[in-house]
Amino acid sequence: MRLKIISKKSPKVEPIVNKIKETASSLGFTLDESEPDVILAVGGDGTLLKAVSYGKPIVTIKAGRRGFLMDGEPDEIGNILQRLAKGDYLVQEYPLLRATHSRGSVEVFNEVGILFDEPESILVSVNYSDVSFISEGDGVLISTPQGSTGWSMSITGVYLGVDALEVTLVSPILSPVKSLIIPRTQVRLVMEDKGYEQRARVVADGEIVDLIKTGEGLLIEPSPKRAVIYRFFKSDPVRGLLSWKR
Amino acid sequence: MRLKIISKKSPKVEPIVNKIKETASSLGFTLDESEPDVILAVGGDGTLLKAVSYGKPIVTIKAGRRGFLMDGEPDEIGNILQRLAKGDYLVQEYPLLRATHSRGSVEVFNEVGILFDEPESILVSVNYSDVSFISEGDGVLISTPQGSTGWSMSITGVYLGVDALEVTLVSPILSPVKSLIIPRTQVRLVMEDKGYEQRARVVADGEIVDLIKTGEGLLIEPSPKRAVIYRFFKSDPVRGLLSWKR
Repeated sequence: MRLKIISKKSPKVEPIVNKIKETASSLGFTLDESEPDVILAVGGDGTLLKAVSYGKPIVTIKAGRRGFLMDGEPDEIGNILQRLAKGDYLVQEYPLLRATHSRGSVEVFNEVGILFDEPESILVSVNYSDVSFISEGDGVLISTPQGSTGWSMSITGVYLGVDALEVTLVSPILSPVKSLIIPRTQVRLVMEDKGYEQRARVVADGEIVDLIKTGEGLLIEPSPKRAVIYRFFKSDPVRGLLSWKR
Repeated sequence: MRLKIISKKSPKVEPIVNKIKETASSLGFTLDESEPDVILAVGGDGTLLKAVSYGKPIVTIKAGRRGFLMDGEPDEIGNILQRLAKGDYLVQEYPLLRATHSRGSVEVFNEVGILFDEPESILVSVNYSDVSFISEGDGVLISTPQGSTGWSMSITGVYLGVDALEVTLVSPILSPVKSLIIPRTQVRLVMEDKGYEQRARVVADGEIVDLIKTGEGLLIEPSPKRAVIYRFFKSDPVRGLLSWKR
């Protein structure tokens, strides 16, 4: 079985990666950068996001400060690789979103949305099914269930344990609504006119993928693709979040 | 058709109720306190909650300060009653919860939970499916989708637009989680031991239904019953919430 390792570049993670390479080699795995069967994501949730973009099944090894979506501890690497070889794991599928903006489209694991570029409020209209409204504030994010343990959680404090989407209103002005839980459906976000030209960022899974102007926006829809993660241990995001300490 | 009117007792609502009685009588409706076919709820969401307990289809007339779940304006009463007689309305069904506590059980339209009695934090354990955790704070509420426009919204800012439950952590201490969106399933809340005897309130739809002690709690489960509301106008809770002004 061919493995590719994606890791966080840090002095703490490097020895873990070296140990994984040794163990993998001793168990008969080969490392293959271009045509891997499985990606090993070593780090935190940010590393997982990078691994998702390869479209291959992922094994997660926790080596970051946090990592709600990571289930393997570095001490368990021998155990994990042996079980990987035997096929002794749970396959978990995570729904992705596809976001189309003026410069192309992107597959989204956690969240995508429109965020202010200059530090001033922007108007973003949110449109889905027969609902349409405008939010004024720092922006609007659309997040998947798995994304609700990330940036959206930090903003709204909501954990989304059902197959739906969270519409996160980022620092809304004069609105009691911070979070809307809506069906997994098509959502259109548009940067509305505040009376003068404004610029905003399109952010997807922590990357700025586009800069947009008044009147522009993005279309977010359920993707036919799913991210696949092989699970070796029970991950418990709710307890992880509740016991989170700075 | 026999009508029963449930109304808010206020000088503003009284003339509306009198007009409804006149109009109803002129259109051939009879008023029947004990065996009505339909309940007319005249007021705000609090009046609707009272009407739900009769287990009959409800027509809502907005006459409160708010009323996200009410769709009829008092000016439209003639129109509404004529359409009621003809069966020209949309039937909307709302899922209820059943909460069983030490003194009995209660059907719940909006929310039910455990809340502090004395102003000091309480420990409440939340158990559903294979999830179990303890929250320290002012209490925990479980709310229905329709309840998410009420007390839970005021606490968390979440609008629940899917068929699920919201677990609302009321002023949690040291926790980033305020709201968990979970499947419509059985939930058990227990008041845990803080090291000395505490008392808490069981609140259901704005009523204190029980006082419980350490170690006691309640079982919340999807009810086989549903509340039925006849809708004559499009109600739009999202826009209602977003344009809410004090």
